[in-house]
Amino acid sequence: ELGVCYYPEQWPREKWQDDARRMKELGLSWVRVGEFAWAHMEPRPGDLRWEWLDEAIDVLGRAGLKVILGTPTAAPPKWLVDLYPDILPVDTKGTVRKFGARRHYCFSSRRYRQEAARIVEAMAKRYGTHPFVYAWQIDNEYGDHDTVYSYSKEAERAFRLWLAERYGTIDALNAAWGTNFWSMRYGAFEEIELPNNLVEEPSPTHLVDFIRFSSDQVKSFNGMQADLLRRHAPGRPVTHNFMSNNFDFDHYEVGADIDIASWDVYPMGGLLNGRLSDDNKARYLRTGDPDQTAFYHDLYRAVGRGRVWVMEQQPGPVNWASHNQAPADGMVRLWTWLAYAHGADMVSYFRWRQIHYAQEQFHSALLLPNGEPDQGYQEVAQVIAEIARLPAGARRKKAEVALVVDYPSRWASRALPQGRSYDATAIGLDWYAALSRYGIDVDIVGQHCDLDGYAAVFAPDLLIVDAVFVERLAQCGAKALFGPRSGSKTPNLQIPTSLPPGPLNALLDMQVVRVESLPEFHIESVLHGNETYPASVWRETIRTSEPVLASFSGEYRDGAPALVGNSKARYLAVVAQGDLLMKVIGDTLDWAGVARQPDLGDLRVSRRGPLHFAFNFGKVSAEVPAATEAVFHVGERILTPIGVAVWTE
Amino acid sequence: ELGVCYYPEQWPREKWQDDARRMKELGLSWVRVGEFAWAHMEPRPGDLRWEWLDEAIDVLGRAGLKVILGTPTAAPPKWLVDLYPDILPVDTKGTVRKFGARRHYCFSSRRYRQEAARIVEAMAKRYGTHPFVYAWQIDNEYGDHDTVYSYSKEAERAFRLWLAERYGTIDALNAAWGTNFWSMRYGAFEEIELPNNLVEEPSPTHLVDFIRFSSDQVKSFNGMQADLLRRHAPGRPVTHNFMSNNFDFDHYEVGADIDIASWDVYPMGGLLNGRLSDDNKARYLRTGDPDQTAFYHDLYRAVGRGRVWVMEQQPGPVNWASHNQAPADGMVRLWTWLAYAHGADMVSYFRWRQIHYAQEQFHSALLLPNGEPDQGYQEVAQVIAEIARLPAGARRKKAEVALVVDYPSRWASRALPQGRSYDATAIGLDWYAALSRYGIDVDIVGQHCDLDGYAAVFAPDLLIVDAVFVERLAQCGAKALFGPRSGSKTPNLQIPTSLPPGPLNALLDMQVVRVESLPEFHIESVLHGNETYPASVWRETIRTSEPVLASFSGEYRDGAPALVGNSKARYLAVVAQGDLLMKVIGDTLDWAGVARQPDLGDLRVSRRGPLHFAFNFGKVSAEVPAATEAVFHVGERILTPIGVAVWTE
Amino acid sequence: ELGVCYYPEQWPREKWQDDARRMKELGLSWVRVGEFAWAHMEPRPGDLRWEWLDEAIDVLGRAGLKVILGTPTAAPPKWLVDLYPDILPVDTKGTVRKFGARRHYCFSSRRYRQEAARIVEAMAKRYGTHPFVYAWQIDNEYGDHDTVYSYSKEAERAFRLWLAERYGTIDALNAAWGTNFWSMRYGAFEEIELPNNLVEEPSPTHLVDFIRFSSDQVKSFNGMQADLLRRHAPGRPVTHNFMSNNFDFDHYEVGADIDIASWDVYPMGGLLNGRLSDDNKARYLRTGDPDQTAFYHDLYRAVGRGRVWVMEQQPGPVNWASHNQAPADGMVRLWTWLAYAHGADMVSYFRWRQIHYAQEQFHSALLLPNGEPDQGYQEVAQVIAEIARLPAGARRKKAEVALVVDYPSRWASRALPQGRSYDATAIGLDWYAALSRYGIDVDIVGQHCDLDGYAAVFAPDLLIVDAVFVERLAQCGAKALFGPRSGSKTPNLQIPTSLPPGPLNALLDMQVVRVESLPEFHIESVLHGNETYPASVWRETIRTSEPVLASFSGEYRDGAPALVGNSKARYLAVVAQGDLLMKVIGDTLDWAGVARQPDLGDLRVSRRGPLHFAFNFGKVSAEVPAATEAVFHVGERILTPIGVAVWTE
Ligand SMILES: [Zn+2]
Ligand SMILES: [Zn+2]
Ligand SMILES: [Zn+2]
Repeated sequence: ELGVCYYPEQWPREKWQDDARRMKELGLSWVRVGEFAWAHMEPRPGDLRWEWLDEAIDVLGRAGLKVILGTPTAAPPKWLVDLYPDILPVDTKGTVRKFGARRHYCFSSRRYRQEAARIVEAMAKRYGTHPFVYAWQIDNEYGDHDTVYSYSKEAERAFRLWLAERYGTIDALNAAWGTNFWSMRYGAFEEIELPNNLVEEPSPTHLVDFIRFSSDQVKSFNGMQADLLRRHAPGRPVTHNFMSNNFDFDHYEVGADIDIASWDVYPMGGLLNGRLSDDNKARYLRTGDPDQTAFYHDLYRAVGRGRVWVMEQQPGPVNWASHNQAPADGMVRLWTWLAYAHGADMVSYFRWRQIHYAQEQFHSALLLPNGEPDQGYQEVAQVIAEIARLPAGARRKKAEVALVVDYPSRWASRALPQGRSYDATAIGLDWYAALSRYGIDVDIVGQHCDLDGYAAVFAPDLLIVDAVFVERLAQCGAKALFGPRSGSKTPNLQIPTSLPPGPLNALLDMQVVRVESLPEFHIESVLHGNETYPASVWRETIRTSEPVLASFSGEYRDGAPALVGNSKARYLAVVAQGDLLMKVIGDTLDWAGVARQPDLGDLRVSRRGPLHFAFNFGKVSAEVPAATEAVFHVGERILTPIGVAVWTE
Repeated sequence: ELGVCYYPEQWPREKWQDDARRMKELGLSWVRVGEFAWAHMEPRPGDLRWEWLDEAIDVLGRAGLKVILGTPTAAPPKWLVDLYPDILPVDTKGTVRKFGARRHYCFSSRRYRQEAARIVEAMAKRYGTHPFVYAWQIDNEYGDHDTVYSYSKEAERAFRLWLAERYGTIDALNAAWGTNFWSMRYGAFEEIELPNNLVEEPSPTHLVDFIRFSSDQVKSFNGMQADLLRRHAPGRPVTHNFMSNNFDFDHYEVGADIDIASWDVYPMGGLLNGRLSDDNKARYLRTGDPDQTAFYHDLYRAVGRGRVWVMEQQPGPVNWASHNQAPADGMVRLWTWLAYAHGADMVSYFRWRQIHYAQEQFHSALLLPNGEPDQGYQEVAQVIAEIARLPAGARRKKAEVALVVDYPSRWASRALPQGRSYDATAIGLDWYAALSRYGIDVDIVGQHCDLDGYAAVFAPDLLIVDAVFVERLAQCGAKALFGPRSGSKTPNLQIPTSLPPGPLNALLDMQVVRVESLPEFHIESVLHGNETYPASVWRETIRTSEPVLASFSGEYRDGAPALVGNSKARYLAVVAQGDLLMKVIGDTLDWAGVARQPDLGDLRVSRRGPLHFAFNFGKVSAEVPAATEAVFHVGERILTPIGVAVWTE
Repeated sequence: ELGVCYYPEQWPREKWQDDARRMKELGLSWVRVGEFAWAHMEPRPGDLRWEWLDEAIDVLGRAGLKVILGTPTAAPPKWLVDLYPDILPVDTKGTVRKFGARRHYCFSSRRYRQEAARIVEAMAKRYGTHPFVYAWQIDNEYGDHDTVYSYSKEAERAFRLWLAERYGTIDALNAAWGTNFWSMRYGAFEEIELPNNLVEEPSPTHLVDFIRFSSDQVKSFNGMQADLLRRHAPGRPVTHNFMSNNFDFDHYEVGADIDIASWDVYPMGGLLNGRLSDDNKARYLRTGDPDQTAFYHDLYRAVGRGRVWVMEQQPGPVNWASHNQAPADGMVRLWTWLAYAHGADMVSYFRWRQIHYAQEQFHSALLLPNGEPDQGYQEVAQVIAEIARLPAGARRKKAEVALVVDYPSRWASRALPQGRSYDATAIGLDWYAALSRYGIDVDIVGQHCDLDGYAAVFAPDLLIVDAVFVERLAQCGAKALFGPRSGSKTPNLQIPTSLPPGPLNALLDMQVVRVESLPEFHIESVLHGNETYPASVWRETIRTSEPVLASFSGEYRDGAPALVGNSKARYLAVVAQGDLLMKVIGDTLDWAGVARQPDLGDLRVSRRGPLHFAFNFGKVSAEVPAATEAVFHVGERILTPIGVAVWTE
C-alpha cells in the first residue's frame, strides 16, 4: 500500500479538502501527519490547540485515507527550550547546539523526558482511539545530524548512573576500562566524565560505554513514548522512521519496542555519501547504488521482526546532500517495487507538495509547489496501476542466506579503528552486494536472531562474538564465513585471553597473532586457486591447523594463510573487495549448496512469496533470469534500463 | 595619478623628509597615511597626540604630495578593548576573537560606535580643512578575515531590533522565515538568536536576514564616519578601500555613502584563491588571472558611481596567501595601466618601504627595507614617464554591454547552495572573462542601475529579481541573457508562487520545474548548433513555449531545452563553462548586435575615451586589434608578453 | 645493551617472577618501570603506596636486570586534577583538555609543579640509592599530542612574567614585536594575552616568544625534576625519552639538564607522517624511511652530548598512526643494529608483553598478550647472539660532516611560513638523506656546538644565525653550505638591517632582495653544470659579487643566481630536492675534500669506532662498500634485503 507525508500546518485550510481528494484519487491509502507540529499543538506553555489537527485528520480520514500520526518530539518549540535551556544538546567540542532547526534536544535531559511524555500523552489520549488514526510514528529520524551523542551536564549525570548500574562497583569499571593503564583509575562513579576534549583518545571501553549508554538513552526515550501510545492507542501499530547509514545506536534494541520498523529512503544522497568509487558513483549517478537500498530494506525487516515500511520515499531530487542530482525518470517506480520485493508493506512518499519556504524548499514532492503533478506523481500512478495486476498477499519467505549486522561490533571498530581505511559499513555493504550480484536473497540478522534453516551465514565484521550466537551457529546446519577481526574483542573491548578469534575457536582452530592496517597506496596479493587477486586495507597473520584455502603472496610473509576453514566455518584474514570478494563469496555459496546465478552485473533480483522481481540498474537492456515458462505480470524478459519485471514461474 | 601608502609612525622622524622628497622625485602625487595609527593618536585613554601626525602631514604636504588621511578604526588600541571588552567580535563557534592583529571589533558594539565616532570626529575637526589633506579614507578593508559577521551578545541584541524594524510583527517574520516548518515559530523578537551552532542549517531566510543585517551594520558604521567627515571636512572626497573577492556585505549600499570607491589590488593571491584550474593557475602564475582584476575595477567603478581608485596596488610578492609567488617583471606597470584603462583615476602602491618587522615583513614595497629601490619602483618610474606622453582627460564611456552583479542574489545562493559546486563568484567571473575574450568593454551594474543605452545585459546568477529591474529592462532596448537560477527566489528566499523564474515571466514564458546540482565527476552534454558541449554543476528542467536554442542530449531527458529565448530575452538552463560559455556569450553578442573580436586568447583590450589599450597576459607576442591607421603612444602593434599598448585610432 | 619496558602494575604479581626470569633468559640487561604509575603509587591524596613497587624492583633486580625508574608525572591521577582543576591544559581554541588519557597537565600550573615535585621527591628519596635502580627517566614524551602549548590562565600569567624578565620594559617588547604596526602597542606586561583566537595571525615575534616561553617551561619543569633526582639519586644517570618529529621545544636546552638523551623509535608511523611521496612510502612501507631514524639517532646524540639511548623501540605493528602496517621480518633486528651503529648504548623495546586492554591494545610487544614470543622476541634473541661476536667498546668518532639543526630557526619558519610548502623538517631530512646516500657519517650540531675538526658544515634552514656561530665557523677549517632563508631573521624575527643573510655577510658578499614561495603545480628550472634541474617551493633573488655556481633558467629572471659561493661558503637560493639536491650536496662534499661513495641507493652505511655497518632498505641484494680485506662479523659482502652487515677493515 502507498501513502504520502502531509503537513496540514504548512498549507491554508482551504487546500486540505482538495489535497485529500487528490491523494485518494491517485490511489494512496495512507497519510502521515503531525510530526514536527508541536508549536502548532501548543503555541504557548500549556495552551494545547487540537482543533486544527482534529479538522485535518477528519478531512483526510473522510477522504478515505488512513492516518499515521507522528509525535512531535523531534522539534520542541522555542518557548520550551527558553523555559528549560538544559533541553538543548551539547556538541563534542562542548558547545550548546541552538534552536532553529530540529532535533535540538538531549536524550538525557530529565526535563525533556517529562515534557515529551506530557505532549505525547495528551496527543495519545485525544487521538489514541480515533477511527481515522491507524498507526503512530514516534519522533523522527533518531540520530540525524549527530544527535545521539550529547556532551551535556545532564548526559554526564545520566552516564554516571548508567555506569553504576552496569558495573556495580568502581573496581569493576576500572577492570573493564583497563585503568591500570596510564593511571586512569577512578575512585568513584562521580569522578567519571564524558569522553570528549581529551588530550588523546580515551580508553576504548570508556568510549564504547558512552556509545552504549547513548544508545540506551534512545531506547528508553523511545520506549517511554511507545508505552504511552500502547496505553492510550491500543491495537494501533507503533513505528519509528529510521535513517539509512546510521549506526550510532542499536536499532534492534529500539526496534524491539515498536511494531513496525520504517525507514526513509533517499538513494541519491546515499550514493554520494556511500561506499562506491567516484567512477561507480558516476555510473549509478541517477539510479543510486544498486545494493544499498535493498540492504537497508533487509536490515529494517530484521529490526521490525519481519514488518518493514518505507515512511519517506525520495520522489525526485532533494536538498540536503553535497550535490542533489535528479533520479532517472522511472526510478521512483523502481524504488517502490524494490521496497515491495524486499518485504515492505507500505511505501509513503515524502512529500505531497513541495514547500516553497524554509530549509527543504529544494526537496521535490509528488506535486510542484504550485500544485501541479511532478514526475514522481506520474510514476506513483503507474505503480498503483501495476500493483492491481498482481496476485495479492505475497509474503517474503525466510532466505537461505543470512548476513550478520551487529551494532556493538560496529562501535568496537569505531572505538578501535586501528587503520583509517577500515570501514565496517562499506565492508558489510560490499559483502551484501556480492551476494546480490549472485542473485541471492539475504536475511540480515543480529546475533540474537534464530539461525535455523539458513544454509549459509556471512559475518563480515563481527568483532564481538556472543557465546550464545556461536552455540546456535554450531548447532544449526549453516556453513559460516567470517571476515577479519571476527571475535577479536570481548564485550568490554579487550583482546580475548585465548587471542582472537576468541569464542570462534569453538568452530575454528586458529589464532590471529598479528593484525595490520594498510594505507591506500599499498596493495597485497592473495593467491586463490590459480589466480592472484589484489587486496588492501587490513591483513592478519594467523596460525592454524585448519586447511588453508587461499594464501598471501609477495615479499612479506609469502604463503601465509589468507583464507582458512573446515567443514563448518571459514575465516578470511584480509579485507576482500572486487574480484577477490566475488570469488570468496561465490565459493562459499557453492560450498554451502546455495544455488546462485552467474554475476548479474547491473541486474538485481528478489523474491516475495511466489513473485519474482528483477530490476535493471544498468544502461543497457538485459535478460532476466526467469524460467522459460515464467508469466510476466509487469515488464518483460528483456528488461530495459530502469526497468522492473515481476513474474511467477 | 599615482600615489603610495606611507606609515610615518613606523619610521624614525629623520627619514620622513627624505622619504617625501623621494616620493615626489619619483613622480607620485598622493600619499595615504593614518589608518591603523590609533595607538599613536591616543596612546592612553583621552590622551590625544596629534603632534607627530601634524608634522608628518606637513612634511609630506610641503614636499608637494596630496595626503589621503585614513581613520584608524580598523585597529582599536589595547587599552580600549581592555576597558570595553564587548568591542571584541565573536566567531561562528562562539569564541571571542582576541586583540593582537586588526579588525578586532564588532560592528554592533554600541560602545565601539561611540569610541569610533569620538576619534573620527577629533581627527576630522583637526584635519578636516587642512590644506594638505585632500581626501579621506574610512577604516580599512571591511570584511577582511570574516569580520563582517560577529556572533556576540551585542550583535544578537542589534539583530533583534533590526528584525523588529524590518518585519514589524513577529507573525510577519514567522511567515517570511517559514517557521511553520519544523515548529520553528517565534513568539517575540526577543526569542530570536543568531544562526550559529545549530543542529542543522537554519531557515535560509534566518541566515540571509543575518547577512543583510550584518551588511546594514557595515553600512551604518561607515555612514556614521562619512557623516562626521562631511561635516568637518567639507569638499574633501571620502573613500573606503574595498577588497576583491568579498561579497559579505552590499558594496553598492556602502558605496552610496562615499564619494569614490577604492579597492586593493592583489592579483597574485587572487589567482591562487580564484576560479581557475591548477593548470591555468600555473599558466598565469606570474601575471594573475587576466580577467579578475579588470572585473573588480569595473565592479568598483559601479560601486563608486563612476569614480574608482586603487588604494593599494601590489608592488611585488606579498605575504598573506597560501603561496606568495613574485609577479613577472613588468606586471606592476601592466596593472597600473590596466587600472587606468578601466577607469581608475588614482593608483596608490602598497607600500613605500618594506617593513622589517611584524606580520607583513614579507610584503614587498617600492623600496627594500634598507631603502633601496626595488623592482616596483623602476616600473612606477616607467609608467609615469609613459603617462606623460598621453593626451589628458580621457574618460571612460558607458559600455554597450552590462553584467549584473547583485549582492542579495549572492547571499541567496550562499544560504541555499543546493550543490557544493555552484560558485556564484566563479560563474560571474567566467561570464565576464568570456566577454573580455571577445574584446568587449563591460559595465558592471546592480539592479538599481540605469539600463538605458545598453545593447545587451548579462545576468549570470540573478536569483532574486527586482520587479522594477525587470520593468526597466523590458523598456530599454537591451537584449538579455539570464543564467540558471535567475528569478528563482523571492526577496524572502522563497520559491515564487508562479515557480521560477518568477518575475522574469514578464520577459519569458517558461517555468523551471526541476533543478539539480551535479558532482564534479559527472558531465552533461548540450547540443548547440551542430556541436555537443560538456557541461556540469547545475541543470534545470524547463517547460516553455519559447523557441529552444540548445538542448540537452544523453540518457536523462534527452532533448530537454538547455537554452531558450525570444526576441528580448534568453534563459540558460545549465551552468556553462569553457567552449559552451564562449558559444552562448558569442551568440548573444551577435544577436544583440554588439561588434566583437574573435577570441583574443591571452590578449585583453579596453577603451577609455579616445584611448585604446591592449595587455598581453600570454607567453608569446601577439598582434593587437588596432585599426591600420592607429597611432601608438605606448608599445607597438606586436605586443610582447607582459606588454602594454596604448593607441588612438 | 638491550632492555625492555615493563608495567608490573598491569599484570598480576604471580607473573612478575616469571617475566623477570624470561627477560634475563632472553639476554636483556635493562628494564624500565614506573612512568604512568602515579595512581598506583598514590591511590588517594597523600596515601603513598610503595610496597608493590618495592617488590617489583626487587623481583626484577634479583633476576639480574638493571632498573630504569620513571617519574610518573606524565599522568596525574584523577583525584589530583579534581582537587586542582587548573592543572589541566587548555587547547588552542580555549577548551580545557580533560582527564582520561595522559599528558593532561599544563607546564605553567604552579600547583602542578608543587605536586610533581612532591611525588618525584618522595620517589627519589625512596629509590634514589636503591641498588637495583641504575637510572632515572623523567616524565614521558614531552610534547606528545600538542601538549607543549597550553592556553590556560596559568600560562598567561607565567608568559607575562617571562616577558617581563626577557624584555625588562614594555617599550623593549613593543620594539621587538613591532607593535607600531596595526596599533598593537601594549602599555604594560599585564595587558599581554596568549596568541590564540586572534582575528588574523599575531605578530610573529609574539608567536615565537610564546613558543620560546613554552619551551622554557618544559626546560624548567624537567630541570626541577632533574635537580631532585640529582640530590636524592646521586650518580645515577637521568634521562628523558624524547619523540621524533617534534620541534615544539628546544631539545638541546632540555638535554643540557640530563645525562643521556633517549628517544622513542617508531619508524612505521614515522614513515606515514613523514616527508616522502606516496610512491616512496609504498616502496619503504615495511622498512620505514631509510634516513629518518638515523637522523634522530644523530640528533639525540647531539642533545645528549654524545650519550644516546633508545628507550622505546618499535617491536612490530603499533596502534596510533593513520595506518599501522607491520614491519618486514628482520626490521626489529635491523633497527637495533642501526641504533648501535649511530651511537646508542642501550636499546629498550616497547614493550615486554602486549596488553589486552585500554588504548594501546593493538601495540605489539616482544610477547603476545598470552605470553608467547612474538616475532620481535626472536629478532632480539638473534641480535643478542650477534652482538656477542663483536669486539667490545667501540665508540663513535666525531664525523667529518656536520648538519645544523636549530630550534629557534624552526620556530621562525613556523611563525613566518610565507608559503605553505616550505617544510623545514622535510628540508633538513632531505639534506641528511642526500649525505647518507653518499655514505657520509654526519654529526648533527646546534649553533652552540664546537665546529673544530669538521670538513663541511651544512645548514639547510638556519633562519636565525648567531654571530658567535658565524665567528666559530669562520675560524674553523670547514666549508659551509647554506640553504635559502639562512640568516634572514634576527633573534626577534625581524629582517636584518643589512638585508638577509644578515650575519652571514661575514662569510658571503650577497644580499637577498626578493623571496617567493611557489605552489606545488609550478616548477622552476636550475641550470647547474650542463644540466637543468627542476626545483620548487621557494626561490630567492640575490645580488652578489661572489661567483655564480648555478643559475635559474626560464621566463622569469633568466640567469639569476641559484647557487653562489666563495672559497669558504656557498649559498643556495632555492629549495633543492631530488637530483638537484644530490648534485649540490655531492659537489659540496668534493669541494670540502670529504670522500664519498657513489649514490648508495637503498643501502646505508655507518661507522662506530673500528666497526663498519651496512643496512639494506631495498628489495634486492646489494654489495656493501667494504674494503677487499674486510672481515665480516655479521652478514656478508652481498647484503640481502633487510640485511645487516658489520665488518672491520
Ligand atoms: Zn537532515
Ligand atoms: Zn588580511
Ligand atoms: Zn600518542
